[in-house]
Parts: sequence; structure tokens; C-alpha cells
Amino acid sequence: MRIRELRAAECGEILARTELGRLACARNDQPYIVPIHFSFDPSDKCLYAFSTIGQKILWMRENPKVCVEIEEITDKNHWTTVVVLGRYHELADAPEDAGARTRAQALFERRREWWLPALAKTDTREHHTVVIYCIWIDRISGRRASRG
Amino acid sequence: MRIRELRAAECGEILARTELGRLACARNDQPYIVPIHFSFDPSDKCLYAFSTIGQKILWMRENPKVCVEIEEITDKNHWTTVVVLGRYHELADAPEDAGARTRAQALFERRREWWLPALAKTDTREHHTVVIYCIWIDRISGRRASRG
Repeated sequence: MRIRELRAAECGEILARTELGRLACARNDQPYIVPIHFSFDPSDKCLYAFSTIGQKILWMRENPKVCVEIEEITDKNHWTTVVVLGRYHELADAPEDAGARTRAQALFERRREWWLPALAKTDTREHHTVVIYCIWIDRISGRRASRG
Repeated sequence: MRIRELRAAECGEILARTELGRLACARNDQPYIVPIHFSFDPSDKCLYAFSTIGQKILWMRENPKVCVEIEEITDKNHWTTVVVLGRYHELADAPEDAGARTRAQALFERRREWWLPALAKTDTREHHTVVIYCIWIDRISGRRASRG
């Protein structure tokens, strides 16, 4: 097997075609991983996502440093991983975030079916507050394995 | 979609049949995710894995708190995730770790094909020191989504 490092532009192309990733946040040195859906367009410098308020949002509000990892796996010898180190920024109703919120919602509209899983809870009668956030990309790296 | 919490025994069964997970470690509040192969048997209270020495081993030596996440995804409406919060423990050549090393190696033998990807590097001429480690499980939780 050969493994090579991906260029930043290659990593961006992979993020743009990916729907599902895993986000890690940390509190008191304890990391925590949760799957997320996100939107990314190569013209942006951040990933956009949304969530109901739960452990990961509370942790990211306390410590904005996060990691997002995505994978494209064909088999044990043919796979690609991309890792983003970044910072959580919540897109509030404040005027300075209005542009980013509009941008995020335009990207979400392309993938409307996400709303259902993101909002599903064991108790569906509960009222859910939805947080829209972005992950500013500080560093991006990727590796691709192939046979030979 | 309905989501239900899994019992600890159900989580253990899923870990036992899983080969690939993602490990998050953290340094200075910055989490970092990397895919790993691991072995787990329901009679154990830890996951076993091995790696060449790189960023994740250096970070875990500094801060042993980690998270391991695994997924079984059929489609957007049918998926299971299991999350382990645990602590890194390196299985050195010390006598007190001899039993655990033997146990780990017996489990690795069942999945010999792992060695190749774990040891593959861009420069294959380099000599690699392999570290065997376990993740002591502090907490385990899981969620399963189904349609209906």
C-alpha cells in the first residue's frame, strides 16, 4: 500500500462532495466525537452545520477548538481521509452574522433531507432550539491510500 | 425517524464485531481525530490497538483522555453509533503489562491483514517502532436510529 499526502485543494474538493463527517470537541482535556452533517463549498473558508442544543454545542461554546474528520473508504487498501482543525463559531441572530447565516441556509437548502435526522429525538414532543454554526478552518490535511 | 439509547451490553456487541473506528485525542484543548483499527472482546474492559509512533501516540502520552467512535450506517434513517470515553494506556515491555500484551496480540492475530495498513508509510524504507496500547473504557453509550 502507498499513502500520499493530499494538497489543500484536493482536500477541499473532497469536503465539498461529502455529507457526513465526525466532529470532535473537548472539555477539560476529554475529547468527544459525534457524527455531523455539514455543508462546504470550496469558495468558503468554513464548514456550515446546525444542531439542536446538546452536549457538543455546550462543549464547543466553552472551548471552540474542534476537529472534523471525513473518510472515503473503498476497501482496506483504497481510502482517503481529510482532517480539519478549526474553531467553532455560532451564527447568532446578530447583524454581523446575517451574511453567514444566509450563506449557510442556502447551502442547507441543497440537502433538505438533513433536517429530519438532525432534529430527531427520542421524545419528539419536545421543543427544539436549533443552532446554526460554522467551523473556521485553521488547518486542513488529507491522506490517500492506494495499492501498489 | 426514531432514535433510542442502547444498553451497555448492546454497545459491547457492536464493538466486538467492528474493525474500524475513529479515535480522538486532545492537546491544549485542541482535539484531533484519526481512524484506527482496534480489537475488542466483550470479556475485556478495554479496546486494544497498535500504531507506529506519530502525532496521536505523542498526544495520548501527554493526555491519556480519549474518545473512540464507531458507526454502522445503512442509510440516513437506519444507523447506529457507539461512543467510548476512555483512557490511553501504553502496553510497554514491563512485566505488569505482559498479560495484556499477550491478550492484545492474540486478538490482533485474528485480523492479521491490519498490520499492513497500520505500518504503511509514505517512505517504506523507514524503520518503524510499533506501540501496542489499550483504551480503558470509562463510559460507553450508543444510539440507534430506525424508521417509524
